[in-house]
Amino acid sequence: MSKEITSRSEDYSQWYNDLVLKSGLADYSAVRGCMVIKPYGYAIWENMRDVLDKMFKDTGHVNAYFPIFIPKSLFEAEEKNAEGFAKECAVVTHYRLKTDPDNPGKLMVDPEAKLEEELVVRPTSEAIIWNTYKGWIQSYRDLPILVNQWANVVRWEMRTRLFLRTAEFLWQEGHTAHATKEEAITETEQMLEVYARFAEEWMALPVVKGIKTANERFAGADETYCIEALMQDGKALQAGTSHFLGQNFAKAFDVTYVNRENKPEYVWATSWGVSTRLMGALVMAHSDDDGLILPPKLAPIQVVLVPIYKGPESKPLIDSKAQEIVSALKAAGVKVKFDDSDNSRPGWKFAEYEMKGVPVRVALGLRDIEQGVAEVARRDTKEKQTMPLEGLSEKLIALLEEIQQNIYLKALQFRNDQITAVDDWAQFQQVLDEKAGFVSAHWDGTPETEEKIKELTKATIRCIPLNNTQEAGKCVYSGNPSSQRVLFARAY
Amino acid sequence: MSKEITSRSEDYSQWYNDLVLKSGLADYSAVRGCMVIKPYGYAIWENMRDVLDKMFKDTGHVNAYFPIFIPKSLFEAEEKNAEGFAKECAVVTHYRLKTDPDNPGKLMVDPEAKLEEELVVRPTSEAIIWNTYKGWIQSYRDLPILVNQWANVVRWEMRTRLFLRTAEFLWQEGHTAHATKEEAITETEQMLEVYARFAEEWMALPVVKGIKTANERFAGADETYCIEALMQDGKALQAGTSHFLGQNFAKAFDVTYVNRENKPEYVWATSWGVSTRLMGALVMAHSDDDGLILPPKLAPIQVVLVPIYKGPESKPLIDSKAQEIVSALKAAGVKVKFDDSDNSRPGWKFAEYEMKGVPVRVALGLRDIEQGVAEVARRDTKEKQTMPLEGLSEKLIALLEEIQQNIYLKALQFRNDQITAVDDWAQFQQVLDEKAGFVSAHWDGTPETEEKIKELTKATIRCIPLNNTQEAGKCVYSGNPSSQRVLFARAY
Repeated sequence: MSKEITSRSEDYSQWYNDLVLKSGLADYSAVRGCMVIKPYGYAIWENMRDVLDKMFKDTGHVNAYFPIFIPKSLFEAEEKNAEGFAKECAVVTHYRLKTDPDNPGKLMVDPEAKLEEELVVRPTSEAIIWNTYKGWIQSYRDLPILVNQWANVVRWEMRTRLFLRTAEFLWQEGHTAHATKEEAITETEQMLEVYARFAEEWMALPVVKGIKTANERFAGADETYCIEALMQDGKALQAGTSHFLGQNFAKAFDVTYVNRENKPEYVWATSWGVSTRLMGALVMAHSDDDGLILPPKLAPIQVVLVPIYKGPESKPLIDSKAQEIVSALKAAGVKVKFDDSDNSRPGWKFAEYEMKGVPVRVALGLRDIEQGVAEVARRDTKEKQTMPLEGLSEKLIALLEEIQQNIYLKALQFRNDQITAVDDWAQFQQVLDEKAGFVSAHWDGTPETEEKIKELTKATIRCIPLNNTQEAGKCVYSGNPSSQRVLFARAY
Repeated sequence: MSKEITSRSEDYSQWYNDLVLKSGLADYSAVRGCMVIKPYGYAIWENMRDVLDKMFKDTGHVNAYFPIFIPKSLFEAEEKNAEGFAKECAVVTHYRLKTDPDNPGKLMVDPEAKLEEELVVRPTSEAIIWNTYKGWIQSYRDLPILVNQWANVVRWEMRTRLFLRTAEFLWQEGHTAHATKEEAITETEQMLEVYARFAEEWMALPVVKGIKTANERFAGADETYCIEALMQDGKALQAGTSHFLGQNFAKAFDVTYVNRENKPEYVWATSWGVSTRLMGALVMAHSDDDGLILPPKLAPIQVVLVPIYKGPESKPLIDSKAQEIVSALKAAGVKVKFDDSDNSRPGWKFAEYEMKGVPVRVALGLRDIEQGVAEVARRDTKEKQTMPLEGLSEKLIALLEEIQQNIYLKALQFRNDQITAVDDWAQFQQVLDEKAGFVSAHWDGTPETEEKIKELTKATIRCIPLNNTQEAGKCVYSGNPSSQRVLFARAY
C-alpha cells in the first residue's frame, strides 16, 4: 500500500491533510489558498447540495444568481459588514492585459485599463443583493422575498487549509426580506433548524444549536444563530450560520416598503449559509486511520462489489451473479459500483475503497457462489460477515441504514462525553489542554471577559445554546454573577 | 396591462430587452455588464443544467471544481489562448481594503496589500486545469480524464446584453485529456452531438452542426466545432462549441504520459462549453410580442390553473375540483401551478402567464364544472379549446408534447426558409440586408476573403457544415475556385 496516511494519534492535522489528498477529495492548486475540488470530493458536495437545495425549496425558497463583483461604494454602504470583511477582500482594479514590451511572449496589466471604481470579489453578497432588492420591493405585496444563491466566494485568509479555510470556497447564501421583525426571526430560526436537520440526518453529525455572542456575530447582523459540531480531536467547528440582520441592510441601501396602512417602513432581513467547509467537518468527524468513513446517505458509492476471480474460467459465472446483485441494488436506488478492473488485485481494491470511505464492500468468489453467500464488510466498524445471496439487496439496504445510524450515534456519544461542565478557572484550563471538547461554564456576559479567556486559552465561546437552562452561577474567569452556562472550545 | 413590451417589428432588440426584464428572467445590476439572474430565469437555467449534467454523466463525465483565479504566469503559458483573452480579463491586483483616512466611513484599496503576481479572473479554465492535470497524469492508466465544471467566468466585454453577452456569465466547461488524437477528436464530436441533441430535443431549437474557420476558432484550439442557431430576426447565434485542442495545452504545461511501450508522449485535449447565453437563444428563437414562449420540457411551470370564482360561495367547489386536477398532473410529473391568489383578476393572470411563457393555461369556472369541462389555452398558438374534465391530465400531457413538437417544427421551418443559396456578390449583400438568415455561398478558403466579406457586410462565416456537400464552385466574393459552400450570417 503506497497510500498510507499519518495516524490521528501521531498528528491529527497531518492525518486530515493526507486523507483529503489521498482519498481524492481535493488537491492544492497553483493559486495561493485556493483548492481544486476533485471529482470524488465534488460528488459528495453535489449530494449535499442537492439535499439542501430540496430542503430550501420545500421551505418556500427559490434560487437566483447575483454578480460576483461588488463596486466598492456599495460594499462599504453597510459599515459594520464592510469593516468585518475589508481585510480579506480580493480586489479587481483593471480589466485588460497587454503584451509586455520588455518580455516577449509575456503579458502585463494594461495601466490604461484601470477601473474607475474598484470591484470587490464577493466575500458575501448582502451588499449587491440588497442594492438589487431595492428595485424589487415597493409594497408589502412584494414581500417576503425568499431567495437562495449557490455560488463561489472569496475571503483572503492568511492561513488556509483544504475545505476548512480556503481563499475561494463554494457555498449557498440565503437572503430573505420580510415585512416584520417577527417573520424575519422565524425565518432565521427555521433555517437554523434546516441546517441542524441536514447535519444530523444526512451528515450523521450531531450539532449544538445556539446563538453567538456579540463578539462572534456576523458583521452586520443583529443576531447570529449557529450550529456547532465537535471534531475527533476535541476542537469545535462552526458548521452553519443563520443571521437575523434587523433593518441594517435595508437602512444602508434605503429599502422600504409601503405597508397595508400605506406607510413606508424599512424591510427586515435574514441571511444564512453553509459552505464546502462542511466537507472538512464530514471528514474529520467520522474518519479513521485507514481513510474516510462516509455516511451512506451522502456517499457517492454506497456499495462496492469486488469480484474475486480464480482464473479466467471463473469470470463468466462471477460476473453474471455480480450483475444480478448490481441490478437489484440499482433498482432499489442504491449507488453501487462493480469494480471488475483487472489492473489491481482485490486486496489493493479493498484498501482503496476503505480509503474512499465506501460504506459497504461485497466480495464475491466462486466458492461463495457455490455456497450461495457473499462476504460483506462494513466500513464503519470493519466487521465482516457472510450473507446469503438470497435477499442480499434488502439486507444491504438495511445495513446501509444501520451504518448511517451507527456513525451518528458514535459521533453523538463522543460529543456528549466531550461536554464538560466546569466551575473553576484552573480546571477550565486543564480540561481544555488535557481533554479538549466543549467546556460548559458560567460567563459574566461581558466582551472583556470573553476576550481575556480567548487570549489566555485560545478558547472562544462557540455558542449560547438555544433553550439553555437558566441557573445562577459565577463566571469561571471573573467570578462575577452569571445566569447561564455557555459552551467554550478551541475551534477550527 | 402595465407590462406591455415593444413589438418585434418595431424594434427587435428592444423587444428582447423588454421581454427579459418584464418576464422576470433577469435584471441589470450595479456592476457594469453583469446581470442578476432572477428566480424565474434561474429556474429555467437549472432545468437546462440538470438535463445537460445528466447527458454529461451518461457519457462518462464527472464534475469537479477549479479555482476562479489564474496566476498571470500560468495564464500566459499557452500563448494563443492568452492572446485571445488578454483584452477582456478582469485582474485582481490587491487582497485588502482599508479605511480611507481622507474619507471617514469609506474604504480604499490598501496599497501595501499588492499581490506579488496578479490573478486573472478566469475567462475560461484551460490554463489552471492543465496545470493541475500535470499532477494527475503519469501513465496511460490515468487516461482519459473526463471532467466537467459548472462555474462562473468573466470576460470584460465592452458592449453587453442580458444573457447574450455579459461580463460575468454562468457556464459549464468540459476539459478532457486523452492518450490519442483519435480519441480526443471522437470526444470533441461526441460532445457536439450532445449539445445538438440538447438544443433540438429540449430547447426546441434547430441547429446546424459545423466547424469554424481558422479565424473564428477558439484561441488555442486546433479545431472548433459548433452548433449555430437562427433567431427570429435572421441573425445567427453560436449556441455551443466543442474544441479539439490538440497537444497545445499539454505542451504549454508539459503534460506527458508514459504509454504502453513505456515512452513519454504529450496528452491530447478537448474542451467544450455552453453558457447562460442559451437563455438568450431560447427567448429569441420562440417568443412573440405577448411574451415568452417556452418549450414545455424546460418550462418551470408547464401548466397553470386559474380558477374563475363567481362570488365566495363558488370557491370551495372550484378549489376542490382544481386540486383534483393538480394532484393528477403532479402525480404524472407535470410542473403545475394553481394560482388562486386574490390580489389580481383572471384577465391579469392570463396576461402574466402569457408573458412568462407558461405553455398551457387551464381556466376553471362554475359553469365549466357543471358541464364537466375546462377551458384550455395553449401559449404557442394561443388557441383555446374546451376539454372534458374526465381524463384531463392525460390530454394536457399530450398537449404539452404537441406544443414541444410544434415549437420545434415552427423554428425548423423558419430556419430552413432562411437558408439562401447565393452565387453572386450583389445578391449576397442584398439577401443579407433584405432577408437576413444564413447565406450559403462558395468561399475560396482564405482568411483574407473572409475578413474582407466581414468588413463589407458584417457577416461572418458561422460554420462549414459537417458532412457538407462537396461541389465545385466559385467564391462569391473573389471568384476563385471553391469546393464547398459555407454558411455566412450576421450574428449575435
